[in-house]
This record gives sequence, structure tokens and C-alpha cells, in this order.
Amino acid sequence: MARACVVGAGMTHFGVHDKPLEELFAEAALSAIHDAGVDGDEIDSLYFGNAMGGITENDTHLAPKLASYLGLQGIPCQRFEDACATSSNAFKHAVQSVEAGVHDVVLVGGAERCTPETGLDTKEMTRTFASASHRTYEQPLGLTFPGVFALLTKRHMYEYGTTEEQLAEVAVKNHDHGRYNPRAHFGGQVDVAEVLDSPIVADPFHLMDCCPFSDGASAVIVVSDELAESFRGEPVDVTGVGHRTDTVPIADKNAPVETTAAKEAATEAYEQAGISADNIDFAEVHDCFTGAEVIAIEALGLVPEGEGGPVTKRGETHLSGEMPVNPSGGLKAKGHPIGATGTAQIVELTEQLRGEVGERQVPDATKAVAHNLGGDTATAVVTVMEAGQ
Amino acid sequence: MARACVVGAGMTHFGVHDKPLEELFAEAALSAIHDAGVDGDEIDSLYFGNAMGGITENDTHLAPKLASYLGLQGIPCQRFEDACATSSNAFKHAVQSVEAGVHDVVLVGGAERCTPETGLDTKEMTRTFASASHRTYEQPLGLTFPGVFALLTKRHMYEYGTTEEQLAEVAVKNHDHGRYNPRAHFGGQVDVAEVLDSPIVADPFHLMDCCPFSDGASAVIVVSDELAESFRGEPVDVTGVGHRTDTVPIADKNAPVETTAAKEAATEAYEQAGISADNIDFAEVHDCFTGAEVIAIEALGLVPEGEGGPVTKRGETHLSGEMPVNPSGGLKAKGHPIGATGTAQIVELTEQLRGEVGERQVPDATKAVAHNLGGDTATAVVTVMEAGQ
Repeated sequence: MARACVVGAGMTHFGVHDKPLEELFAEAALSAIHDAGVDGDEIDSLYFGNAMGGITENDTHLAPKLASYLGLQGIPCQRFEDACATSSNAFKHAVQSVEAGVHDVVLVGGAERCTPETGLDTKEMTRTFASASHRTYEQPLGLTFPGVFALLTKRHMYEYGTTEEQLAEVAVKNHDHGRYNPRAHFGGQVDVAEVLDSPIVADPFHLMDCCPFSDGASAVIVVSDELAESFRGEPVDVTGVGHRTDTVPIADKNAPVETTAAKEAATEAYEQAGISADNIDFAEVHDCFTGAEVIAIEALGLVPEGEGGPVTKRGETHLSGEMPVNPSGGLKAKGHPIGATGTAQIVELTEQLRGEVGERQVPDATKAVAHNLGGDTATAVVTVMEAGQ
Repeated sequence: MARACVVGAGMTHFGVHDKPLEELFAEAALSAIHDAGVDGDEIDSLYFGNAMGGITENDTHLAPKLASYLGLQGIPCQRFEDACATSSNAFKHAVQSVEAGVHDVVLVGGAERCTPETGLDTKEMTRTFASASHRTYEQPLGLTFPGVFALLTKRHMYEYGTTEEQLAEVAVKNHDHGRYNPRAHFGGQVDVAEVLDSPIVADPFHLMDCCPFSDGASAVIVVSDELAESFRGEPVDVTGVGHRTDTVPIADKNAPVETTAAKEAATEAYEQAGISADNIDFAEVHDCFTGAEVIAIEALGLVPEGEGGPVTKRGETHLSGEMPVNPSGGLKAKGHPIGATGTAQIVELTEQLRGEVGERQVPDATKAVAHNLGGDTATAVVTVMEAGQ
């Protein structure tokens, strides 16, 4: 079986864009295509992720539309929807198609518009995002995602003594990282007091504990290791992709703070890669809220259970620490255009493992992990990538 | 590489249902699971198709929700959206995952609710379906799907002399077939005059040229040929799955009446199966409108170009003819719950090739083809299945 590599990566600035979805995606895709040095007619297939386009774009046949816009009409195209883990799942299938020899060169990516540029205001977009919570048991109660992750985080605080100050440290760190990422929605020096002084959204989360609504797109080119040498882009190996799910309603989960799907997906990804969490040099994790990052680094085995808060406060997950987490700024500062987030993590892993990100470079990084959640932590995709040999 | 087989098939009645999507899908899935004789804990993955759920269900994290409802929480799950070809694309990926050895036993299916039971009336649902036409060039003009296929069919009439009477014969035949399918939305003896007397929807289509809006679900169990013997269900081989796309706007297509994506997908599927159209014993095709069936049987190479109308009028595509088309009743009579249609065709192929469908049985059928279109014929998935050896 072939090994899959990423040979090209591209993404737009994450933030507010006044262009249609196809232009956003084309910017990311053409950037990845250029980075790889691949010709359009070499691309076999498009694996595309978009979560909310039925509602936000009134568009339910996106994959061939976007392919045609790129001049790729004719190739097989598919759109995935798995809430916030949408493009990670598209990436998983692209990787599997290359490993199986079904395709040689695959364009995979995601795009989403989440700001009032869509015509939906913040209230309407909050309701749109809530379409990924449980239709029967959660939506009628008004449980939106700040609430879902607030419940998880409150439980973490109860079980482990995690504090609001420790959560705020996640925001401080990720905004600091965002300063060095020219494609980040936000970035700047903030302090714990500013986070704690920002308005409460859902206890324990203040406004600055929450990721923004962003527009954006991301894309990568996946090829087999045998072909990788024929492209200009420096290959980065995809050595493991784990994918697990859990029951959707937060109230139904056996071990909500464990994020079982993420823990199991990480185990699967590490096994595929033949490594353990100890071998990881840095991580991009799904920090839609500060509490989510604390929980994520525990689920990935990067820190002991319950230690996510103290480890963050001690600065160990800062770029300058032992285990940098979200050097890109994460969802918190880089932004979170839902369907684009998964492959944006892959873009960051690719560029970091090539050593080409400048001031936010994790020194000597050779192995990294990406952790992408969907909905009430009910979909989790964990990817291990390693610098090419 | 393993060969994939279907060992279990199930579907709901297609029509009007007053139950939620998860119950609809569970009915089809449990029927397929029972037919296969597979235990729940043997199922590795769920490949699920639903096209419009963001709009119609306000639910954008369907795959893990439906898996949990079936007691399958934890397994990797994914939702596909490719307009009306949604669950065929899910099926393609399920087949590829089994062929590659990624999964051993996969549940694949689709579900959709399209009737006023969703809370959306016919006008709102027509607008919802139109979300699969081109957002920029077609939706603002009010081009809905009767219009898209009317334009295609008018061109076919212009190029080949196809008549409204010949189109009406498709409806007459498929309603006749529907009489023998207990799961069909419609079925009964109608004549050409009744079709032509029904109100015009979009010239040349009368109301009875159009498929209905239906609720429904369908599912199959896909396993490798090596494992097939260990299950109760009689295996039917999947020997080819072709998948191609085309540019979306009907006005942009090089050869609209050819339905290029379908023609190329058929070529790919036949090549994979090592057969030609001459070897096919019957076909299930995407007859969302009568004209679409005429065009489909030409794209599949089952009849010469331009002969779809006359062949239908001569009765050759009737169950009693040489090349039965849509023995299930097709979308026209069986119904068209968008995301369920692709795998419902696979259900019909499976049951026909096992010889278990009673009065609508195609005698001595050993090879069959399914043809599923998405949107403005911009996605096409063509599947060849063969009776087990």
C-alpha cells in the first residue's frame, strides 16, 4: 500500500471576506496547486468539505461547482459534511484513496463563510452553527455551542480544579501565536485580566475564551510517496489518520470530559504511525473555546489527565515551551471557518514540518498531530504527519 | 484487492412518512442488517447520504447521530452530499473502503424527507431542491429542476425528433412497474392520454412526467467477497463504480443532451467490470423526469443515441421487453427521496439479481446497471452489479 504525502498547501487569510465561496476556495486551492507545482490536468479528484452551505449558501451541489470554477470539471468530486470536522474527514478519504491506489493526485480542502457577508447576522449564524447539535434533544432547549463546551469545561473544572485563569491563559497564548501568523483572524498581546474582563458568553467562557466567526478556505495536495519526488513541493508524510465518533447529545456521553472519540482517534492515529504521544513535537488542536484546548491536549495524551490547565499556565504549550500547541494561533486566534478548519490544521502541520513558517516555527519539529472535533465532540479526526525522510 | 459485495439490502416504503429522519433511516438500516444476518458490532463504518438536511432538518451532524440511534456509536461515520447522487457517492466510497481493506463490513445508505411532513410546503421544497442548481447563474433566474430537465429534453426533441407521446410512455411504463413494487410511492395503470392531459409543469413536462416528492430511506451492507460467505445474505458482486462530474450550469455544458458525466461514468464502470452495455440485462436509471430516462438509456449505451423515445414507445424497456428499465418503478413511480435514491437503486439491483422480487422480476438477470444523477447532470455515478458466482 502506498503512503500518502502532502506536497502542496495553501489557505486564505481567515477573517472577513466579501467574496463568494468559489473565489475563496479557488484562492486556497490555487495556492496549494502552485505550492505543489502540480498541473491541473494531473489532479484526479476533489475531496471537499463544507458544513453549512445548504443553509448559508443555499447551495447543495458544491463539489462539481467548485471543481469547474478551478477548470477541473469532469473529475470525480465529493462534498463531505461532518460539522466542524468536515474537511478532516474529506482529508482522511483523500489519503485513503491515494493509499489504495484509486487516485494519484488529489485536491482536498474546505471552505466556509460564517460572517455577516453571507447575509446572516451573528444571531442567525449562531442558530446555524447550532444545527450541528442534536436536533431532538438539544436544539429545542436552545443549547448552542458555547453552551455545549461550557458544560464540558465546567465538568473539567469540577473534576480537576481547572480555573478560569488557566482557561484565559489559552487565549493569551493563542493570540500571542496569532501575531506571527499573517493569515490569522486575530493576533496580539492580551493578558489574563483582559480575557476575564470580557463579557460572559456562557459560564465559564468570556467573549475572549471563544473563537471568532470567520470566512476562509484551505487546501492541500495529497499524492503517493512514489510520486512525491516528481512535484516541486517538499513532501510531508501522512503516517496516521484516526477517526471515531460518539453519541451526539452531551448528556448521553459516558465520559464527556474524556472526549472519547478524540481519545480513540488519537490511539488509532498513533498506532498507524507507530509512535506514541511522547514522540510528538507540536500539536494543532480544536480550540473552539479555551476549555476545548485544555481537554484536547489531555485526550491526545500530550499531558496527563486533568493537567491541561496547569500545564498551560506554566507556559509549556507556548511556542517557547516544551510542547507547543496551536502555533498557528488555533481556532481561537487564527479563526474558525467551519469547513476549512480541518485542512487548515494540515496546512500548518505541512508548513511547520517543512520549517518554513518563520517567527512561529517550532524548532526541529519532525512529528506533529492535528486534532479536529465535530459538533458535541461526536466526530473526531486525529492526523499524524512527519517530516519527509 | 478484495472485491466488494452487497450481502444485505433494505428500504422503507417511499412516500409520505410522519416519522423523524433517524427512524426512517433505522427502518431501512435494520432491514439491511437483518437481511445480511450481520451483528451490529461487526459493522466497521457508516457511509451516509443526505442532500438537504441542513435546510430541511436543521441538522448538520447527521452521520454520528444516526449511528448512535442504531446503537453503532463509536465507529467512523461520514455524511456525503452530492445532490441527488448523494448516496451513490457514499456507496462508491464504501465499496472502495472494502476493496482497499480499510473496512470489512460497512453500512451505507441514505435518507431524506421531502414532503410537507418536514414543515416545508411544496413551494418551499421546490426552492430547497433548487439549491442544487447553480447559485450564481441559475437560482437567481428561478430555474428549478423541472426547468433544467425540460431544457435538456426540449433539446433532445429538437435533435432527435423525440415526442411528448414517447415521453409519456416512460411514465406509463414506470407506473405499471410500480404496481408490482410494494415499496413504491405510486403505481397503477395510466395511459398516454392521462399523462398528456395532466397540467403542464415545464414544457414539455406535464405533472405526470415528473417524479414525486417522497420521504424514504434505503441501506445496504457492503463486505469483501472473502467475508461474504460468513453472512446469511446472498452476496451480489459490485464489479464497477464509475463517477464523473460536469460543469454545473446547464448553459455551460459542451454536450448537454449527451450528459457527458453519465456517459463517462458508464464507460468507467463497464471497464472496471470488464463488460459492455450489450451484457446488461436491466437498468435502474435516474428518471426524475420522463425525458431524463430517455437520455439516460442513451448515455448508458443501452440504446443508440436518439433512439430512447422510439425504443420506449415500442415497449422494449418494459419489464416484458428486451431491456427492462426501472423495474422498480424508478424515481417516477417508486419515488425520489433525494439522498435515499442512490442506494435504493442498489437495493433493487441486489434483490433482482438474487431473483427475489416476485412479479417484477427480470427473468434470468445476471448483470445490471444503476445510473444516478446529481443536480444539473453535473454528478453521475454508474454502478455495475453481477449475480454471485
